[in-house]
Amino acid sequence: MGGTIAFASSAVLSVAEQKVDIFAAVVLGLITAVGGGTLRDVILNVPVFWADETIYLWVAMTASVATFYATSLFGRREIRRLFLYIDGAAVAMFAIQATEKVWRLDFGLPLGPIILGIVTATGGGMTRDVLSGRPTLLFSRDLYAIPITVGCILLTLILHFAPEYRGPGSIVCVGVIFAIRAAAIYWDIKVPDWSITGFKRGAS
Amino acid sequence: MGGTIAFASSAVLSVAEQKVDIFAAVVLGLITAVGGGTLRDVILNVPVFWADETIYLWVAMTASVATFYATSLFGRREIRRLFLYIDGAAVAMFAIQATEKVWRLDFGLPLGPIILGIVTATGGGMTRDVLSGRPTLLFSRDLYAIPITVGCILLTLILHFAPEYRGPGSIVCVGVIFAIRAAAIYWDIKVPDWSITGFKRGAS
Amino acid sequence: MGGTIAFASSAVLSVAEQKVDIFAAVVLGLITAVGGGTLRDVILNVPVFWADETIYLWVAMTASVATFYATSLFGRREIRRLFLYIDGAAVAMFAIQATEKVWRLDFGLPLGPIILGIVTATGGGMTRDVLSGRPTLLFSRDLYAIPITVGCILLTLILHFAPEYRGPGSIVCVGVIFAIRAAAIYWDIKVPDWSITGFKRGAS
Repeated sequence: MGGTIAFASSAVLSVAEQKVDIFAAVVLGLITAVGGGTLRDVILNVPVFWADETIYLWVAMTASVATFYATSLFGRREIRRLFLYIDGAAVAMFAIQATEKVWRLDFGLPLGPIILGIVTATGGGMTRDVLSGRPTLLFSRDLYAIPITVGCILLTLILHFAPEYRGPGSIVCVGVIFAIRAAAIYWDIKVPDWSITGFKRGAS
Repeated sequence: MGGTIAFASSAVLSVAEQKVDIFAAVVLGLITAVGGGTLRDVILNVPVFWADETIYLWVAMTASVATFYATSLFGRREIRRLFLYIDGAAVAMFAIQATEKVWRLDFGLPLGPIILGIVTATGGGMTRDVLSGRPTLLFSRDLYAIPITVGCILLTLILHFAPEYRGPGSIVCVGVIFAIRAAAIYWDIKVPDWSITGFKRGAS
Repeated sequence: MGGTIAFASSAVLSVAEQKVDIFAAVVLGLITAVGGGTLRDVILNVPVFWADETIYLWVAMTASVATFYATSLFGRREIRRLFLYIDGAAVAMFAIQATEKVWRLDFGLPLGPIILGIVTATGGGMTRDVLSGRPTLLFSRDLYAIPITVGCILLTLILHFAPEYRGPGSIVCVGVIFAIRAAAIYWDIKVPDWSITGFKRGAS
């Protein structure tokens, strides 16, 4: 629930510079908050989660409207930074929750839960970026998807080798994702140079 | 059916300036015409509507081809304006029809029918814009999605509080959406300034 | 399987100039390789193919990683050209296999198998292009989707009028698609001028 609020708010913040109206802001907030989970459920071929729990929709809409009218406040650098951390926590929770759900459904083990964990955590934001005509996080050098992947792989290992630690394991994995992400925000850590394609070196 | 023709034609018109070939024009016409409904059915987890009624595909393809070869005609400003009205009528019918269908399926009430009404009416056009590398309607200041939302909310209220007026209520809602949209086209009404984010005011 | 490798590799090659890191390269390779089939299965409302056969995911990931680290090699013009041919063969196999699957499911005949054949063969690449912020193949003048369409229509005709030739017919259709595509690569054949919209002629 907190994740939904954080996702919707950070979406509105991130498009605010593009001069959107309140309607578009709410649409983008909603897409960011529930888009990843919708994509996951559509791929799993199960009913989308917000069909039964419309509370997620209400929360996302309310958070979007509130953020929209509070943008002059959130414009300040400190608040934005705070939101990066909240977004990091939301991403961690969404990813781990999705990995668990997919594992329970026995779907495409062992890669399925990891892939759909990443899809759930990043799909909404990527859809927002595509609809906003902005570069997706794939082309950013922020450490964003990598901590998610680490956490989802870790949880998959726990679920496979030590299923009795499912509960505490999940919490640890959320913590791992958030810790790496928070460190990346705090010390401004980027993806290292050696991991970028060296095409320039080759004769093209 | 008329909506399908209008959607396919307006899609071909809208990409014609980008110098597409006949094949791409038909693909984009098809996506615009059936994309929104496909997205709705995928989210609803029901068979897509055009699997049983392929007539929609034939109509959309024929309309796309016809429009493609008639582009020199449609290039004239008046014809284009006429198409905006036809598109407005199509959008109204698609949205209301979808809202009704989703309500009947008892899916995510009360927000589900409204959201999927908007998705059905705008999803095809947004997919077309994304594939064409153009800004989506979310960043246009046209009154496009707002009348749809008003109409879908109105129908949801009717279905909830006065289900016995379902039939005439639907017609009224189509009329309301079309009337607002037509007025916006005729008098060139845009989204008002106060509804645009005031980020510029804040210290960023 | 060969198609999956070719798709993943050509995806990594095609984004390599945009300076992506290894993680994003693998994600884009995976999306290109399994995205089209995923879209097809979601529209068909059947379980996605890689849920049961995760080998496709492993192959796509391995091919992406290998290509990423071999980019300085693939940077050479000849290797790239070779990959265009392999990609052409992959596209042909994916399209025909999908057309057959959709026909067997009796889905939206006769247009359904053709449309989903095209979707399967091009959907992954289009998603990759959209996520990479590049123009999709719809706006390229390469002969890419047209041979696919020809092959899928041909197979549909065979399945309808001469179902006893299903087996050899499929092989012929793969050959037809690949032959046209290979000829287009070899002689650098583009979509002819007369098939491009003549909007410029009209008064706009």
